Amino acid sequence: MYDRIKGFSDVYPPEMAAHREVIDTVEGVAAGYGFREISTPALEETKLYVDKSGEEIVEELYSFEDKGGRHVSMTPELTPTVARMVVAKQQELSKPIKWMSTRPFWRYEEPQQGRFREFYQTNVDIFGSAEPVADAEILGVAADSLVALGLEAADFDFRVSHRDVLSGILDSFDTDVDVGDAIRTVDKREKIDHDEYVDGMVAAGLDPDHVARFDELLAFESDELDELGAATGSERVADAVENLQAVLAAAEDLGVREYCTVSLDTARGLDYYTGVVFECFDATGDVSRAVFGGGRYDDLIESFGGQPTPAVGVAPGVMNSTLPLLLKRAGVWPDEAISTDYYILQVGDTRAVAARIACDLRESGHVVESDIADRSFGSQLGYADSINAETVVIVGENDLANDEVTVKDMESGDETTAPVDEFPGDVERPTYADFA
Amino acid sequence: MYDRIKGFSDVYPPEMAAHREVIDTVEGVAAGYGFREISTPALEETKLYVDKSGEEIVEELYSFEDKGGRHVSMTPELTPTVARMVVAKQQELSKPIKWMSTRPFWRYEEPQQGRFREFYQTNVDIFGSAEPVADAEILGVAADSLVALGLEAADFDFRVSHRDVLSGILDSFDTDVDVGDAIRTVDKREKIDHDEYVDGMVAAGLDPDHVARFDELLAFESDELDELGAATGSERVADAVENLQAVLAAAEDLGVREYCTVSLDTARGLDYYTGVVFECFDATGDVSRAVFGGGRYDDLIESFGGQPTPAVGVAPGVMNSTLPLLLKRAGVWPDEAISTDYYILQVGDTRAVAARIACDLRESGHVVESDIADRSFGSQLGYADSINAETVVIVGENDLANDEVTVKDMESGDETTAPVDEFPGDVERPTYADFA
Repeated sequence: MYDRIKGFSDVYPPEMAAHREVIDTVEGVAAGYGFREISTPALEETKLYVDKSGEEIVEELYSFEDKGGRHVSMTPELTPTVARMVVAKQQELSKPIKWMSTRPFWRYEEPQQGRFREFYQTNVDIFGSAEPVADAEILGVAADSLVALGLEAADFDFRVSHRDVLSGILDSFDTDVDVGDAIRTVDKREKIDHDEYVDGMVAAGLDPDHVARFDELLAFESDELDELGAATGSERVADAVENLQAVLAAAEDLGVREYCTVSLDTARGLDYYTGVVFECFDATGDVSRAVFGGGRYDDLIESFGGQPTPAVGVAPGVMNSTLPLLLKRAGVWPDEAISTDYYILQVGDTRAVAARIACDLRESGHVVESDIADRSFGSQLGYADSINAETVVIVGENDLANDEVTVKDMESGDETTAPVDEFPGDVERPTYADFA
Repeated sequence: MYDRIKGFSDVYPPEMAAHREVIDTVEGVAAGYGFREISTPALEETKLYVDKSGEEIVEELYSFEDKGGRHVSMTPELTPTVARMVVAKQQELSKPIKWMSTRPFWRYEEPQQGRFREFYQTNVDIFGSAEPVADAEILGVAADSLVALGLEAADFDFRVSHRDVLSGILDSFDTDVDVGDAIRTVDKREKIDHDEYVDGMVAAGLDPDHVARFDELLAFESDELDELGAATGSERVADAVENLQAVLAAAEDLGVREYCTVSLDTARGLDYYTGVVFECFDATGDVSRAVFGGGRYDDLIESFGGQPTPAVGVAPGVMNSTLPLLLKRAGVWPDEAISTDYYILQVGDTRAVAARIACDLRESGHVVESDIADRSFGSQLGYADSINAETVVIVGENDLANDEVTVKDMESGDETTAPVDEFPGDVERPTYADFA
């Protein structure tokens, strides 16, 4: 009768259990690095996005006029919001600022595999440090998260680049290039054919010879980076290479250098990046699009009216996104199953005792269900099985007449009796084995 | 330069730490009862709300037409969404269904203390049981959550009523009453003056004598409930009273009867309620509005095109809501502070060793920060203090020359040295005391 909206997801408990494990893992890694949770609005003024990206961005936004005449948009990403929040409290906040949060974002794009109109990201950002070790810490959170999820070096690859290498090379051609247009074209290169790429670069102001030379330079690998400054004659490129190498050295100290490949044609689409940028890819290529990405955006805070504040961040898409495709491809997607510690099965009028036992077990932190639908023995046992209950405690009138309950292990089917007054007793997690 | 939108909140880390503790507590209690997490869309078709509540509801919604011409609304509450989800998979879902989720909702209302245009609720619902013990379990989750947050019986009061008592009494007057209008008027009674209340009831079809009699009957307390059937001559009222008493008896078994007061003039504003309803109030009256509420809505699933499916639920507002006001009034609001287990302080070129120690401590599950901004000793120590670091590990060039690090307790200021190769070693959570 009513349908969910195209590109939006209803996530039911078994599938959500897997997503929750992914989210908890990523948040746990970020928390270990000292990133602190914030909460942010779902709506921002539309001009927050239009000022940076132009009117055409509105086509991709859920934007509208609210009842008070405000032009607002459902947030398509977090970076402008956190930049606004840093500016709003820049005097009070002690630096470096390390923030994280997990929440939905919305973009009016055509849904496809791994792309939804509503998707969840865990955003992890550092404000107030221009040091390479800050970039490395962002790479560390991202790589440690994937490893904690069960991925190995053979599964994924961080393609690492530097915006100033790209723009430095473009500037070195000494022609009138629109650097933003050129970088957006580089970002699309893998998705379009070569002629279209060259046409785009020419439209941005390069001549075809420049494009060929540009492509040669972008193909420089890790061990050739030192030559790039000389090859371009650009001090800016040389400085960017030095910064990129310092970031990779700091990543080595954090144990995550092995997940990084220098890949200078990795551009990232968004305009606000300024330094190191990176994208995570499926190393096998089965998942063909970037899984997620991040990078440095040192100018954004100032452009929002704040004091100059360097910044770097990453945003793994943790639900309704590409990351689950990678985890499934690699065979490490968590079980889509709910778990239950105890089901308290009532037979006859035993509710008061059953409720007491359930309350005691819950107080010890266990997940405990009991009959709330006045059902038969068999129906309750079937339900206990359907929720993957480990132990069923049968509270029957006959047992209670003997001051006993029955403790049943649902894996083996074995059961035994236990004195009702000693259940759960002092045992932390009483099972069949404690009473057999 | 950019402002957040009126009625929306930016929540920074210290305050968020308190909110997170509240959310985790409520979710932990619900998880203990076997409620399973779901994830739900932020947008629904506007007709999902209009069909139930009429066109006037749109005035309170963030509703708009999306780029595809769909009339959509940012969800103002979860109940219609979960009803839609139950209908969508009614054949597959084993009953009873027990779902929970924490997420924001949006209503275009005038902000006031404890009321925001974006607010977070933890929704807890049972589908597929009409038994009083299901209602009691919802009361149990709500009361246990508040107790787990530190509240006591003297702090809060669940005012419990029954929709069929209200509508049964109204019907018993044998006059042409608009029951929905009358119940909405009862719901507003505490917020409007008495004349306005009487006018509203008369407009709904009662004459003033009926209103007076109605008010007398609503004043019946717990120990007078048995007389209510006879006093109204209504079997429907008698049945409702019996159901209400059965719910309270089941709540007694769960240990939460003491938090409930029979209060027949508690109506709940929403149309879809059918049975027991309740609202949580500050027992001291300092927080004057209802903190949250819940109840039974047995007809909603069927009205959405599903098989008849009884349902009952509650939705504590866990952030940007009234609950924090109650917790603050009672003096149990969690500390608004971040915590940090270790700060690894670097002096000189010691990054590799500092990074190794930080990684090892993180692997044991600790929150560990280190220098990412190339700062002085004093500046690092000040930062470590600002993030409430318990232990500072100083990794200095001189110490390392002696194969040592310094372990400093930030509470006492005491410090001692530890062999660098044995730090952290096998100790789960090494502190000053382990090496002094």
